[in-house]
Amino acid sequence: MRGGAAKGGDIDALVQLLGRLPGLGPRSARRAVLHLLKRREALLVPLSEALIRVERNVRSCSICGNLDTVDPCALCSHSGRDHSVICVVEEVADLWALERSRAFRGLYHVLGGTLSALDGVGPEDLSIAALVERACRAGVEEVILALNATVDGQTTAHVVTERLAGTGVKVSRLAQGVPLGGELDYLDDGTLIAALKARRPW
Amino acid sequence: MRGGAAKGGDIDALVQLLGRLPGLGPRSARRAVLHLLKRREALLVPLSEALIRVERNVRSCSICGNLDTVDPCALCSHSGRDHSVICVVEEVADLWALERSRAFRGLYHVLGGTLSALDGVGPEDLSIAALVERACRAGVEEVILALNATVDGQTTAHVVTERLAGTGVKVSRLAQGVPLGGELDYLDDGTLIAALKARRPW
Repeated sequence: MRGGAAKGGDIDALVQLLGRLPGLGPRSARRAVLHLLKRREALLVPLSEALIRVERNVRSCSICGNLDTVDPCALCSHSGRDHSVICVVEEVADLWALERSRAFRGLYHVLGGTLSALDGVGPEDLSIAALVERACRAGVEEVILALNATVDGQTTAHVVTERLAGTGVKVSRLAQGVPLGGELDYLDDGTLIAALKARRPW
Repeated sequence: MRGGAAKGGDIDALVQLLGRLPGLGPRSARRAVLHLLKRREALLVPLSEALIRVERNVRSCSICGNLDTVDPCALCSHSGRDHSVICVVEEVADLWALERSRAFRGLYHVLGGTLSALDGVGPEDLSIAALVERACRAGVEEVILALNATVDGQTTAHVVTERLAGTGVKVSRLAQGVPLGGELDYLDDGTLIAALKARRPW
């Protein structure tokens, strides 16, 4: 009798699958399964139904790469948003983060990752060509590169900027500097150097 | 447009439900949903199916309270286990922990919690009566109380011991002391006192 046999095969299978989610290890996956089994009607059944609905209904927007139940997504088809500005992000998670901040009212473009020599991700693996095509359309004036401030993110920003050079649109990127509430003593040198270089008059 | 509207209702609903699992907050629930949507066939679909199977097939063992796809559970109906010893635990998670340790080859009894004046949990809310009934059956010689070393756990152990007094079975409890790898300097006073009191000849 194996160590896990006390749980029965169905429970074991569910523990294994939940343990593959980011942020859940084997122990928290077991806790989650017991939590679910104590709340069958309130959580287990709704969760299984929500997963099926997401699998059936959610797809990538054919324009920007956002995930939504409609294509084009609610952002791309929203008449109240500024269709002259496209904000380029690596992943859908970054798009969600910017939407939560409510700081941006234009459109998005999800690249689907960053260039990475180590992982063998080249320009053709990202939706750069589709971005250039969008930038060429009438009415687009600015592309904001909101890529992560990592080596891969910035390499990708350079390549995207080069590809956009012929389109005539303005290309900008997020400001780098001291984050809100940031204490100088705890910041890395790179951030300090960037913040000093980009200093602004008081 | 609400902050979450960029995601669509189905995604939001799934984020909400996943965020109610122990160990997952709103941020990790969002990450988990994106992780699932990138692995539809490998993770999302199997997870929804595993949840449905667990909901359909898993039930509480009518004898010991363990969760399994059969009733009585695989442990209660296992002829190779020692049916003369019953190990009493608070929750199914504790049963699983003991099974992983492979230290115990008898039967279990899940109380379903601990007595708690604060939370209004009385003896009738736990399966104490069923335990007494099991202890009275022919062949049962010992009941091991493997309850948590918390105030509520030890209060419950006292009450259970009292209820078992008339049955004639031997009642024991887990040893208390220094955990393996434990450093005295980091242990609480209660553990040190218990370990000193229960000291054994070298």
